Amino acid sequence: MAALFRVSRNLLQMCNKHADIAMASSRAMASKTAVGFIGLGNMGSPMAKNLLKHGYPIVAADTSPECGKELQDLGAQIVDCPAEVADKTDRIITMLPSSPNVVDAYTGPHGILKKVKKGTLLIDSSTIDPSVSKEMAAAAEKMGAVFMDAPVSGGVGAASLAKLTFMVGGPEEEFTAVKELLGCMGANVLYCGPVGTGQAAKICNNMLLAIGMIGTAETMNLGIRLGLDPKLLAQILNMSSGRCWSSDAYNPVPGVMEGVPSANNYQGGYSTTLMTKDLGLAQDTAMDTKTPIPLGSLAHEMYRVMCTRGYASKDFSSVFQFLREKEGQ
Amino acid sequence: MAALFRVSRNLLQMCNKHADIAMASSRAMASKTAVGFIGLGNMGSPMAKNLLKHGYPIVAADTSPECGKELQDLGAQIVDCPAEVADKTDRIITMLPSSPNVVDAYTGPHGILKKVKKGTLLIDSSTIDPSVSKEMAAAAEKMGAVFMDAPVSGGVGAASLAKLTFMVGGPEEEFTAVKELLGCMGANVLYCGPVGTGQAAKICNNMLLAIGMIGTAETMNLGIRLGLDPKLLAQILNMSSGRCWSSDAYNPVPGVMEGVPSANNYQGGYSTTLMTKDLGLAQDTAMDTKTPIPLGSLAHEMYRVMCTRGYASKDFSSVFQFLREKEGQ
Amino acid sequence: MAALFRVSRNLLQMCNKHADIAMASSRAMASKTAVGFIGLGNMGSPMAKNLLKHGYPIVAADTSPECGKELQDLGAQIVDCPAEVADKTDRIITMLPSSPNVVDAYTGPHGILKKVKKGTLLIDSSTIDPSVSKEMAAAAEKMGAVFMDAPVSGGVGAASLAKLTFMVGGPEEEFTAVKELLGCMGANVLYCGPVGTGQAAKICNNMLLAIGMIGTAETMNLGIRLGLDPKLLAQILNMSSGRCWSSDAYNPVPGVMEGVPSANNYQGGYSTTLMTKDLGLAQDTAMDTKTPIPLGSLAHEMYRVMCTRGYASKDFSSVFQFLREKEGQ
Amino acid sequence: MAALFRVSRNLLQMCNKHADIAMASSRAMASKTAVGFIGLGNMGSPMAKNLLKHGYPIVAADTSPECGKELQDLGAQIVDCPAEVADKTDRIITMLPSSPNVVDAYTGPHGILKKVKKGTLLIDSSTIDPSVSKEMAAAAEKMGAVFMDAPVSGGVGAASLAKLTFMVGGPEEEFTAVKELLGCMGANVLYCGPVGTGQAAKICNNMLLAIGMIGTAETMNLGIRLGLDPKLLAQILNMSSGRCWSSDAYNPVPGVMEGVPSANNYQGGYSTTLMTKDLGLAQDTAMDTKTPIPLGSLAHEMYRVMCTRGYASKDFSSVFQFLREKEGQ
Repeated sequence: MAALFRVSRNLLQMCNKHADIAMASSRAMASKTAVGFIGLGNMGSPMAKNLLKHGYPIVAADTSPECGKELQDLGAQIVDCPAEVADKTDRIITMLPSSPNVVDAYTGPHGILKKVKKGTLLIDSSTIDPSVSKEMAAAAEKMGAVFMDAPVSGGVGAASLAKLTFMVGGPEEEFTAVKELLGCMGANVLYCGPVGTGQAAKICNNMLLAIGMIGTAETMNLGIRLGLDPKLLAQILNMSSGRCWSSDAYNPVPGVMEGVPSANNYQGGYSTTLMTKDLGLAQDTAMDTKTPIPLGSLAHEMYRVMCTRGYASKDFSSVFQFLREKEGQ
Repeated sequence: MAALFRVSRNLLQMCNKHADIAMASSRAMASKTAVGFIGLGNMGSPMAKNLLKHGYPIVAADTSPECGKELQDLGAQIVDCPAEVADKTDRIITMLPSSPNVVDAYTGPHGILKKVKKGTLLIDSSTIDPSVSKEMAAAAEKMGAVFMDAPVSGGVGAASLAKLTFMVGGPEEEFTAVKELLGCMGANVLYCGPVGTGQAAKICNNMLLAIGMIGTAETMNLGIRLGLDPKLLAQILNMSSGRCWSSDAYNPVPGVMEGVPSANNYQGGYSTTLMTKDLGLAQDTAMDTKTPIPLGSLAHEMYRVMCTRGYASKDFSSVFQFLREKEGQ
Repeated sequence: MAALFRVSRNLLQMCNKHADIAMASSRAMASKTAVGFIGLGNMGSPMAKNLLKHGYPIVAADTSPECGKELQDLGAQIVDCPAEVADKTDRIITMLPSSPNVVDAYTGPHGILKKVKKGTLLIDSSTIDPSVSKEMAAAAEKMGAVFMDAPVSGGVGAASLAKLTFMVGGPEEEFTAVKELLGCMGANVLYCGPVGTGQAAKICNNMLLAIGMIGTAETMNLGIRLGLDPKLLAQILNMSSGRCWSSDAYNPVPGVMEGVPSANNYQGGYSTTLMTKDLGLAQDTAMDTKTPIPLGSLAHEMYRVMCTRGYASKDFSSVFQFLREKEGQ
Repeated sequence: MAALFRVSRNLLQMCNKHADIAMASSRAMASKTAVGFIGLGNMGSPMAKNLLKHGYPIVAADTSPECGKELQDLGAQIVDCPAEVADKTDRIITMLPSSPNVVDAYTGPHGILKKVKKGTLLIDSSTIDPSVSKEMAAAAEKMGAVFMDAPVSGGVGAASLAKLTFMVGGPEEEFTAVKELLGCMGANVLYCGPVGTGQAAKICNNMLLAIGMIGTAETMNLGIRLGLDPKLLAQILNMSSGRCWSSDAYNPVPGVMEGVPSANNYQGGYSTTLMTKDLGLAQDTAMDTKTPIPLGSLAHEMYRVMCTRGYASKDFSSVFQFLREKEGQ
């Protein structure tokens, strides 16, 4: 989640001081071998910077060249396509928006697998369908490379501060090597099991998160209608069996907590669109595995309706606002 | 919740040592005025004992006389009906199964209000519809008495150990007097607002609890199907934004935690029937206040279906078992 | 349903011609005994007129006196309260908005039962909770009167044209007498069983109607998104197993049918508010009888959400509009 | 739907009289060019027979050779693989269980497209994801062939009796040619629009059917609990706005209708498993097109739960039985 971690503004400024980073990275450059990085968007860019900062030379590519500009100034080498990255490095991290982008970056005409070297370690931090992760792993294996899925929890702020949580799936014997790199970009690196289980863990977490959030919004709304003060109700829930992350760390009711999207007109945070995408992945995997998810499915439907009613880019806690108005008014 | 609190067997035995309690209560009896207690079932009986233990003389009544036997042995006076309790005391606690029992105990032909004295403090710890609480408060006010609702969180074990949480609604100026008594029977006494808000807080908590529990069961089941180890998945959720009381304190998957109903074939704990009753109260109050509760409502439906499929007396975490089997098998 | 029946404008004008009605009613007045009518709102007023038209002298009452004006001009006697109606007649019809109004009209201080004569036939055409119907029946029985519930299907247009459908509950031996009167105001008078079953039948019908309507709206929307022409899709559904009243007689998609609310910007018809009220009754009776209604319950929630989003007074088929917009736009 | 059409046993026997069919087909064989048929299962086999009966020589293939035995006895030529069928015919019908089978039959190593001739007409009657239909159409177009989707409504009985309904998607100018063939196997051949819209129409119909069925089951159950006679309730619904195919042609309550699965312990008909598959396709296409389907989605979840509770092979109207039992018993 974007807002899982509260970010000190000072710390953030410090991290972004280019000079410092450049200096730090040049110091270490001599002793470490280059790492490939594909996908330099809002998340990928700060992640790659943190690798630079830890002294890893970076060879990077993105479909839109201007994304690499800032990284280049910091010393990274920008190349034309994933295949070229694969040609120059033997550890590659990909951070892309969705399954088709991942498929293209790996198996497309200019994809990694066109030039991948035997023994290369491929780490995909995108959030995608675990079955696609498995396909990529199988394709990589044919070329003698190892593919691992490692989606993240935590947003742009956490990416900048190297406070992400990585959930890693793939062969356990490669986990140490994976941890060495991901540890530069995150606070937690968790081993989840065979390839695809990193995605599975993330999808599961976000489904339960969505259910907890809508449940909290319904409950807070009901309590307020029944005459309870919202702050007091949150307090009671949080010391009782109703507590959850959405009630005690990310309360959706304006005025209950500070520093969360509900305190800022549901700006920032994790958008309803992205949550809807995650719930779609949950739905897909539930269908593949024939698993009933009644609440997960209804949560998905509600966020889909919200996307059609003007909430697409608001934080997903805005479901409180969506439910708020009184009937017959 | 019954299992909110893990109960040390030794402590429990100690509490139940009749001699000790009798002694303790006789010591204090001289200095404290009698308290009335109506409803001596599984919950009411240990609650009344704790009052005795704190030195309050007890005048009690129950519709089935044998319920008072044990309390009588400990020194309580058992009388015939609520009206008689009201005749002999000016602070009365009621602990009854549902709305009609409460209405009868207060306004019935042998009810409290037939003989209530001006200024009497009436505390109802039953879990009922807040609108009934308001009616009782209005009826009490006409007789010059004060009615407060104070439902509990925590089950029989917590009642025995005086570890209940009370959520109190009613005039704030009476809260100190209420706390003096309820503090003998519980670990937390929370002031929630005007009469009915105690019920409201309890209903809200339990609705969110039910949603969180079903959500956790769906999520754990999905994760297991996707190849995740259940213990590991619980660990990941509990350090991420998916965490909730049902995932970290009362996990519904056998083998993940000890000392919870899922570790004991869903025996003990809080029954599906009781949770269904609470969700019915949530549904009722949501209809009265015109509040949409999509997930709460679906949770209610699921627990109602479970009641028809043999889960009525199992702990409400057995929803995991209900969802567990694989399609097409 | 309001729009169950298409109303010819000419016919309607004819029916409303006061002179004709007054003449017709005066002709028959000599030979028929007076009928009481309580509740002269949008529905009750045209219903009473149809009784007048059939030659029944009318003694009527309404809480707001101006409602009786038009009826008085047509020859009805307007009195002050239900008790007075009961004093002057031995067959009384009530048509009131909701349970509390019915309770008041029967058992209130100026209610029917204050002056009801032995053997009086009481027919309640309001839509209310069947358990309230049963209470009224029991109270009437104590006074030697007979109470029957007879809610209607069909709106103001059908009421004017005497095309209502009545669903009648109560002692079967009274059904002939009931039918004599209701037959003047409706096209169908159906006997459903003991008291309360009239309400039950209406509630059941409307719950299934709501489910069918939302289902049709979802289906039509999905089909359109998949590239189907809405008219063609409706045609296919209507000759297949997907057909229902909402698809073939009241299609919610603008442009598919004429003469329905969807062709008129969802004006007229049966309001979302009223449907929400009916679904609330379904929810109440489902809880009383411990009956799971997952789709009925979700339909209720959806209409409740719609009430909060500006659809309260639109026809209930506007759920198509509610679901229509595309995600992410 | 399997049971859409009631099948006279005599008629069925007549149709199956091999001698007649063989005779009829040999008579016409001289004048008609051969038709290819791939997939000779429960549905495909009687469909192919009906083509034979109309005088079309048949060249057929199936992955399991014994499936073709009976057809061979009737004069059909059985070949090894789809490619060979394509080599010998220029009109081919495919009738396969699911998307992967279709993909393999068209684009696999021995698939149709390996040997398809320019101008060949390919008609797929399988029920699959419309996006797969579009992919097949695109692949066929590259080879100069035309692909149309034509899924059926109606089960094995309807297939035997040539009473199927076909919903056809693809270029309109080919519809006449399609109708010539499909008309031999069905009572209705409907043109739905561009390729994929046949599937879309079928998916839409079945989603609304599932919603109507569960809604009918809930409603009938509620009415029965409220004291209504089930036959009478069905009658009332069927003359009111609650009516739908599931209430008036396929009522799920035993004893209400004859000749439907509910009268036969939910044997025969359309299985819960198949309905769950169709709802999965609805879910998939809803996700692809970002269409909210709250009731459709909950219907899907309910059928998924039923699949895990022993209802997988029962008719989908057994949802009545699933909901039937009373809470707390």
